Amino acid sequence: MHATEVLYELFLIFLLARIAGELMTRIHQPPVIGELLVGALIGPKALGLIHGESEALAAIAELGVVFLLFEVGLENRFSDLRRVGTTAAAVALSGVITPMLLGFLLMNSVFGSGRSVSLFVGAALVATSVGVTARVLADLGLIREIESRVILGAAVIDDVLGLLILAVVSGTAQGGLSAVKVVVLIAEAAFFLVFLATVGTRLMRRHGSLIDRVRLADGPFAVGVIICLGLAALAGTIGLAAIVGAFLAGMVLAETREQFALEERIRPLTNFLAPFFFVLTGTAVDVRSLGNPRVIGIGGAVLAVAIAAKLIPCGLAALKLGRRSALIVGTGMVPRGEVGIIVAAIGLRAGALPDDVYSIIVAMSILTTLIVPPALRVLFKDRLVPQAPTIGEITDEHVPAGPPPEDR
Amino acid sequence: MHATEVLYELFLIFLLARIAGELMTRIHQPPVIGELLVGALIGPKALGLIHGESEALAAIAELGVVFLLFEVGLENRFSDLRRVGTTAAAVALSGVITPMLLGFLLMNSVFGSGRSVSLFVGAALVATSVGVTARVLADLGLIREIESRVILGAAVIDDVLGLLILAVVSGTAQGGLSAVKVVVLIAEAAFFLVFLATVGTRLMRRHGSLIDRVRLADGPFAVGVIICLGLAALAGTIGLAAIVGAFLAGMVLAETREQFALEERIRPLTNFLAPFFFVLTGTAVDVRSLGNPRVIGIGGAVLAVAIAAKLIPCGLAALKLGRRSALIVGTGMVPRGEVGIIVAAIGLRAGALPDDVYSIIVAMSILTTLIVPPALRVLFKDRLVPQAPTIGEITDEHVPAGPPPEDR
Repeated sequence: MHATEVLYELFLIFLLARIAGELMTRIHQPPVIGELLVGALIGPKALGLIHGESEALAAIAELGVVFLLFEVGLENRFSDLRRVGTTAAAVALSGVITPMLLGFLLMNSVFGSGRSVSLFVGAALVATSVGVTARVLADLGLIREIESRVILGAAVIDDVLGLLILAVVSGTAQGGLSAVKVVVLIAEAAFFLVFLATVGTRLMRRHGSLIDRVRLADGPFAVGVIICLGLAALAGTIGLAAIVGAFLAGMVLAETREQFALEERIRPLTNFLAPFFFVLTGTAVDVRSLGNPRVIGIGGAVLAVAIAAKLIPCGLAALKLGRRSALIVGTGMVPRGEVGIIVAAIGLRAGALPDDVYSIIVAMSILTTLIVPPALRVLFKDRLVPQAPTIGEITDEHVPAGPPPEDR
Repeated sequence: MHATEVLYELFLIFLLARIAGELMTRIHQPPVIGELLVGALIGPKALGLIHGESEALAAIAELGVVFLLFEVGLENRFSDLRRVGTTAAAVALSGVITPMLLGFLLMNSVFGSGRSVSLFVGAALVATSVGVTARVLADLGLIREIESRVILGAAVIDDVLGLLILAVVSGTAQGGLSAVKVVVLIAEAAFFLVFLATVGTRLMRRHGSLIDRVRLADGPFAVGVIICLGLAALAGTIGLAAIVGAFLAGMVLAETREQFALEERIRPLTNFLAPFFFVLTGTAVDVRSLGNPRVIGIGGAVLAVAIAAKLIPCGLAALKLGRRSALIVGTGMVPRGEVGIIVAAIGLRAGALPDDVYSIIVAMSILTTLIVPPALRVLFKDRLVPQAPTIGEITDEHVPAGPPPEDR
């Protein structure tokens, strides 16, 4: 009867996750927040409906986050990186360096945390969530405004640099820090990235149409899954995070986007598997620890740094678009969404993050995500169109189709 | 690093499964045969690349077979059952009763096996594989011939009756046979079936469009997965096989087929997950035991009964179409494909089937599937069209669109 118990557990988690996601969608919030809250509610630290995590559930959750990052990668081409424009590149770089530095300094110098914890907090503050930002902009019907294009172009670079940082940080978590190890990890991650960006991309562009020769019922899907799982396992084996491999696999395969529309084929996998990751991630959050005064103090400081370290440098980098537009760009870069949470989950599992810091980062990711939609609505209020496109329409639009207008 | 090991195992299995599937496709055989052979090759009884089965792999395989049967259910509506025509119904009934009886008698009276083993062998001989039959007919470009429509109409009834038998047989495997238990299981299975066929179908037809009110990004997909997992877990809990619940969930949701095209949305899940089930099923096959003279004797007898018990009664039931057509219908009902294998796997896990009988049933399923394509090619040779449709085109065609012509 064990198989039945697993099915029942999966049924219960998926049901609750989708109900919470539906409620969030109806109040114009991303479903992922509902999934995290469900996890916090049914986890061992609250209702206890899920006791610890079974090996089966852990594997399904891992597949969920791997395919999620693969799908994000599929929406970002290496060739797009060269085309995001100088403003977007400046916004991205300043929005990567500042949070990493400030997050590390806050934890290490102000609160006296160890270097490993501080590095993870810094890394969790880096990545802007492409998903949340794009969905908010699409919901507002503003996906084609110049500010949106700068934000989304910058988010692409953010993702790549954020995952590069995560690769190094998560590598150092296994067995402490040493200068040699850091250099080896940076070299590995850089080689992995550069090799795939050059050789991988070129191979895929020149010979990607060979995928059509596969005669299986859904050949391109099978090839995509094989490359995704293969690079994820390879990244894990050489000490990087598995999701880094999955993301880069997606970017390489994104070169064949017009031909195979792989995102469409992968999306049902993500729709089914990813909620398990976020519910499981939520189960590790100790809601009661967030009431502890010391945790509230650190949490408030982390949240303030998280907002300021994106809003100010990104806004300044976009100042040539005008003051209002700079404020919009800075605000649009604030949500951390699922990416900050994924970094925290990796830190927790590696034993590098204590429970309370983990809970703080998850709460920070949720709060930065909650703040932005109403803020953008106010900032854009004179440009809001009456008919916003539905969520389903954003898929092919939230990657910039060309350089932002100011570079033309 | 445990997560990485799981990813590596999944990568390896999926890679080998798809390579074997591709090779089979190229020699015009169903990919599932390649997946079973890969399993037998890398399993603990041969190369030993996979040692036993991890909990994670078992759960993923279970999900694979659950979604596979859900997808098969989605292609069969309860309302189609009433429309398959009298010839198809006669073919189906004679093709269910004869193999069940002969399979049971062969094992119980001739080879002296216990009642539980004999019941499982009978049940494994019942179900015609809709997938294999339809693909062969589509590959030959003959999906719209009258014989094809009778075969496919009969296969729908076959599936339903076969799973009803499986529900009862697998229930009796848990804790032996008793008259009371058999009656309870038959009542349960019949109630489950009739309740879903009447109330479920009516609810879905009248109120199925409510699914459209779900605002999640892929609402119909989420609702479908929830109903599938819920009924699968429920079926498992009341002592039926989980796949019976998944199949009936598919049949109920098939009523909304035109509106939501759920098969399309579920197929990527099946494409990813089902190969793990068949590879894992293959790992339990002991190829060497198939060389044992006693096993060869029993296996030969089972194979002969498997062929004769479909060919003769189904052919006789279709005799009014003419002799050649009756022979075609009888032949088309022979492949057991994945359904026989699924029944055997459930019997093995329930402890009701010994290893050698399990291997015999898997071999029988493979052989009946291998024999039919060349036989149909010979029988249809004067009607073969030069341009066969591609495999991808069969999806919406292999369910009869209306009653077979002779009933009009």
